[in-house]
Amino acid sequence: MTDLARFSINQMTVKQLSLPELAQACGEFAVTQVGLWREPVRAYGVAETAELLRDAGLTVTTLCRGGFFTAIGPRERAAALADNRRAIEEAATLGTGTLVLVSGGLPAGSKDLRGARERVADALAELGPYAEQHGVRLALEVLHPMYAADRCVVSTLAQALDLAERFPARQVGVAVDTYHVWWDDRAPGQIARAGAGGRIHAFQLADWITPLPEGVLNGRGQLGDGAIDLREWRGYVEAAGYTGPIEVELFNEELWARDGREVLAETVERFHGAFG
Amino acid sequence: MTDLARFSINQMTVKQLSLPELAQACGEFAVTQVGLWREPVRAYGVAETAELLRDAGLTVTTLCRGGFFTAIGPRERAAALADNRRAIEEAATLGTGTLVLVSGGLPAGSKDLRGARERVADALAELGPYAEQHGVRLALEVLHPMYAADRCVVSTLAQALDLAERFPARQVGVAVDTYHVWWDDRAPGQIARAGAGGRIHAFQLADWITPLPEGVLNGRGQLGDGAIDLREWRGYVEAAGYTGPIEVELFNEELWARDGREVLAETVERFHGAFG
Repeated sequence: MTDLARFSINQMTVKQLSLPELAQACGEFAVTQVGLWREPVRAYGVAETAELLRDAGLTVTTLCRGGFFTAIGPRERAAALADNRRAIEEAATLGTGTLVLVSGGLPAGSKDLRGARERVADALAELGPYAEQHGVRLALEVLHPMYAADRCVVSTLAQALDLAERFPARQVGVAVDTYHVWWDDRAPGQIARAGAGGRIHAFQLADWITPLPEGVLNGRGQLGDGAIDLREWRGYVEAAGYTGPIEVELFNEELWARDGREVLAETVERFHGAFG
Repeated sequence: MTDLARFSINQMTVKQLSLPELAQACGEFAVTQVGLWREPVRAYGVAETAELLRDAGLTVTTLCRGGFFTAIGPRERAAALADNRRAIEEAATLGTGTLVLVSGGLPAGSKDLRGARERVADALAELGPYAEQHGVRLALEVLHPMYAADRCVVSTLAQALDLAERFPARQVGVAVDTYHVWWDDRAPGQIARAGAGGRIHAFQLADWITPLPEGVLNGRGQLGDGAIDLREWRGYVEAAGYTGPIEVELFNEELWARDGREVLAETVERFHGAFG
């Protein structure tokens, strides 16, 4: 059971559970940490969520997500920055030190990946100090290259670190998710680079299963069901000095169709199975 | 019309056309080069296809595909090598100097990407000399990382070149396809590396469109419909010294549902549009 001290359940894995149901189920299965998403938190109320989880003895490991920085128009950019400032404030209210950022894809009609990546850096420059003032670190998430056009122009850990390292580590680091990096033979070396710089701000697990569903969003596999050697990847982040939470974040229509408590229990069991 | 001298239509783009229909349509639209796939060629007869295309004045730019090298069992490995020797012989009969190789994914139950990539090298060592004897070069294709588990463990140009460079360039090079590499900020540098070594053995075009379809196989976009700056990528391969054919290879259910001659005409027009 030692491992469960590191375990965190991302609420998207069991999105069929309301926040009170999630808090109760966590108590039942000895889970002490949760990762949250802004939409359900805002629907329940940010302060109310903070109170609910505090009362249940739960720690919030990450808030997902800020980002979507790649718009070109000044109005859209200003709106995105304002929304990210709110996300930072929400993270602070929830008592989590980590806001996960999904950078955004190419603007409609654009073919300029390099330019879009540069606009991510511009946004980080604006948001980093604001986050630091609120005691929140920004975790730039690497998304699998299959999302480069429509979701996240940051496709490798090397790219994420090239961006993050322009800023202090207490402001900007990276989120490492096995689903997004498992294919990349450079990723182990980049995890070492991130660890050396104190920039592994989040570590998430999901397994890779095929065939991918249409739109490729909701096909993340339950731990152990897919192609990823999770123990190996945990080994890389720990060798790099990471001792923080290990969050399980699955988007999976089949899991969502099941009883949420049952899925949480299974996920805890799979976590033990992967690392026991 | 200068550009059309470089243009080659891969037969999968218009797979609704039989080989005689393809030959006739090429004549009609001044297309002089085709890329072929083994299955339709074998169905028509390899020698018969060679004769048909020769009579139509068509050159075969590539044969797709050999590969699928990642099996662990000795029997499966021997069968894969035997099949690849046949593919080399077929390429020679068709008069093309280039056999495209898709490496294969992880064997069932395996999570060992590194081991699978090493077995690709083992197969290249066996097949390279046989290909050379037949006047055929092996073009190791990079496939997008979204295929790493189930189709091709070679996910970046850097990985492909690390494998190819263990062998003489006259035996093993790489196939560069914009669909598979467009997201990779290291790819332009790797194209330069490939060109310097005389290892760009094939260059193919497809555009990146979203959402991806279920299974992510048949969603390759018509030129100009997607996120890829095709002119930029052609620039990279040409700056690297590549002067060979530029093959358009689209797997796309919508294109397959249309009249094949119309799709060929559109593809020629889009090719001019992309580079005119």
